[in-house]
Amino acid sequence: MQNRDIIVAPATALGGAIAVIRMSGEGAVECCNRLFKGRKPLTEAKSHTIHYGTIGDGERVVDDVVVAVFRAPYSYTGEESVEISIHGSRYIASEVLRLLCEQGARMAEAGEFSQRALAAGRIDLSQAEAVAELIAAESRAAHAVAATQMRGGYSALLDELREELLNITTLLELELDFSEEDVEFADRSKLRSMLAKTDGAVVRLMDSFKVGNAIREGVAVAIVGRPNVGKSTLLNRLVGDDRAMVSDIAGTTRDTIEESVVIDDIKFRFVDTAGLHDTEDQLEKMGIERTEKAIQKAQIVLYMAEPEQRELELPQLSSEQTLLVVVNKIDTSAERNIDNAIYISAREGEGIEDLRKALRATVDTEGLYRGEVVVSNLRHLEALRRAHNDMTAAIEALDRGISEELLAEDIRSAITALAEITGRITSDDILQNVFANFCIGK
Amino acid sequence: MQNRDIIVAPATALGGAIAVIRMSGEGAVECCNRLFKGRKPLTEAKSHTIHYGTIGDGERVVDDVVVAVFRAPYSYTGEESVEISIHGSRYIASEVLRLLCEQGARMAEAGEFSQRALAAGRIDLSQAEAVAELIAAESRAAHAVAATQMRGGYSALLDELREELLNITTLLELELDFSEEDVEFADRSKLRSMLAKTDGAVVRLMDSFKVGNAIREGVAVAIVGRPNVGKSTLLNRLVGDDRAMVSDIAGTTRDTIEESVVIDDIKFRFVDTAGLHDTEDQLEKMGIERTEKAIQKAQIVLYMAEPEQRELELPQLSSEQTLLVVVNKIDTSAERNIDNAIYISAREGEGIEDLRKALRATVDTEGLYRGEVVVSNLRHLEALRRAHNDMTAAIEALDRGISEELLAEDIRSAITALAEITGRITSDDILQNVFANFCIGK
Repeated sequence: MQNRDIIVAPATALGGAIAVIRMSGEGAVECCNRLFKGRKPLTEAKSHTIHYGTIGDGERVVDDVVVAVFRAPYSYTGEESVEISIHGSRYIASEVLRLLCEQGARMAEAGEFSQRALAAGRIDLSQAEAVAELIAAESRAAHAVAATQMRGGYSALLDELREELLNITTLLELELDFSEEDVEFADRSKLRSMLAKTDGAVVRLMDSFKVGNAIREGVAVAIVGRPNVGKSTLLNRLVGDDRAMVSDIAGTTRDTIEESVVIDDIKFRFVDTAGLHDTEDQLEKMGIERTEKAIQKAQIVLYMAEPEQRELELPQLSSEQTLLVVVNKIDTSAERNIDNAIYISAREGEGIEDLRKALRATVDTEGLYRGEVVVSNLRHLEALRRAHNDMTAAIEALDRGISEELLAEDIRSAITALAEITGRITSDDILQNVFANFCIGK
Repeated sequence: MQNRDIIVAPATALGGAIAVIRMSGEGAVECCNRLFKGRKPLTEAKSHTIHYGTIGDGERVVDDVVVAVFRAPYSYTGEESVEISIHGSRYIASEVLRLLCEQGARMAEAGEFSQRALAAGRIDLSQAEAVAELIAAESRAAHAVAATQMRGGYSALLDELREELLNITTLLELELDFSEEDVEFADRSKLRSMLAKTDGAVVRLMDSFKVGNAIREGVAVAIVGRPNVGKSTLLNRLVGDDRAMVSDIAGTTRDTIEESVVIDDIKFRFVDTAGLHDTEDQLEKMGIERTEKAIQKAQIVLYMAEPEQRELELPQLSSEQTLLVVVNKIDTSAERNIDNAIYISAREGEGIEDLRKALRATVDTEGLYRGEVVVSNLRHLEALRRAHNDMTAAIEALDRGISEELLAEDIRSAITALAEITGRITSDDILQNVFANFCIGK
């Protein structure tokens, strides 16, 4: 970790009143000081102090700046760092970056600041990932998932599970050392229950991914129904009601429009599909195929009908999916013949609040807000699944009276899988994959 | 200036690794502290220190933050201020803003931080305007214009001119006090030369607007010529060569495409026009009308021809405009019959460097980089013009032997006009106009 070079990058987006340029590495303060003119040199500044002055090139002043000085190890990266607040102009940012690079810094790569924080032990890998997810969070629930993870609750839980498994292997290895004496330090039924308990905790984490992923990516809702039943009107209504945030996402195909709406604390991704009806027309058939795909991918299928409609063409859903039947156009008819339906007028706005409540009720976030860990990261899910498979194998081995060696091997493999999540055990491949998704300056 | 409320707004754009929320006003530190948990309360923090902790609502943590504390009057606004660095998420920003507003802050209006800095005498009005222009600067020249203005060079010059005029009025008013005795404290020819000198300086400032405005807005270049002469190819070539910055600007009409290219240190706005040729077709006639308008608005008209072309349809230009004749497609013909033309191949890139040099040479920035003041703001130009008219009237009055009263009135009017630029004399109207163009958080 010694003799790293000095990295620099904009830490904020450009375009506001100010922008912040972040620089980290041994010598960062001196590097900045060579361009800085203020009341006193930055090299004399204490950690966590702010200094007003100018940044420039010889006589040429590029900007009036405020420089924050952080001394090692009291910074995000654990290294000596400076944060330079400049006026938020793209031109000034590029000039200041150019001058700092002339003084020996180099442009940081994506995620490099966090990678250094990881190397310095300031954060673990799952916390680094949580920083990225925190920044991307668009709803209160997504924020809560990432915040728990960033603040180390998740890491602590994983460390606990790892500790349990380490205890088991210690017992098993003691037996191996004394194998010729044929003693059993570990009571087999106690071992089994310890393993089952740990495995149960891992399975609960795996189960939480369903909610965690829905929260992170947004809950996919396919709006289906006959043509002209009011699907687009409903979508517009929901988007219009969204006071928090509305964003258009270019659909994967040109024919499905996807829009995100935050309802209370959860993001929903609505896909308005082509009408569901029998047709011989080739083009329409393609649209219907796409509708069927959208239904397969959806967590919620919102079937829209009209009051006078006699038959419902309800799609086949899996047990994981939720069906909501919504009867639209109640402003045009008093009929209420469809059971368990939510009656609305997308045009008038009637019943929309009931629909929003029904949508929101499909996601259970009670545990999340009590501080429970919710897994939202696919890399973590895969590691958990490997740990679970290893533990299942170990339990089976126990039941079949397999040798301590093989048992211990399975458990060590589970330990490794869990350690990969927090980065206690890691590889360049994992690091590269994780930090490739980071932006410059993070 | 007492008892102002606490204003808050994002100071950076959102979307980066971090974002900064700025809060200013008496009690800002305490307001922030009510949501802050750290090693010690912010209320005990000294000015220009940085504090790590969390921002939250009771037990709920919204984010890990770094808070910079500024004590009055050592801040941008001159007021007690805090700058909160949060993770750059839109959700976190809106939550932190909401919580701060619950604690008594209110969202700042556009330009309100700068307006407070002005009220506190930290900056004058032309400096506040320069901050906005600095942020918008896209080229080295535009940056230099704004930087000189922000750093007070312009204000100092205006104060000097104002001082000169004040001296003259003092002399005139002395005379008025002793008017019954018919003495002349001020030698009339000396007065005249003082006035003429000051007026000369104002006229030089007015003259600098031509360059200043071109630098700020970008130099407008209309590319004209017969159809298929290669106008679009040239535009693409120039844009492709622009290593600094390229931005598409939606044209005012759908038929003129405008693109900005920074050449060395100056931004040029190229307008690709419809072909110039005689036609009876109604639609084409409209295109040609638009071409003529583009030519009128351009500072440089770039007439494109082909090597074999015998006649040039050069447009009528004013003395303020520059004509560049460019002969394209030299890769297809060896003819060089057109005098004073720049020979290029837009397709192959040949001669493009000569063209870039010719374009760049049309803007004289020598004085600018020597630190001379360049006026780039229309409000300032108008005030300067009023001052100039007043001084011209005063000089005429002197020549015609008009009474001291009228003379003094003209000069006072000129003083007021100059004082309006720096905001020494100002009105709510002026302030509103100036700060309406600012963004929130500035």
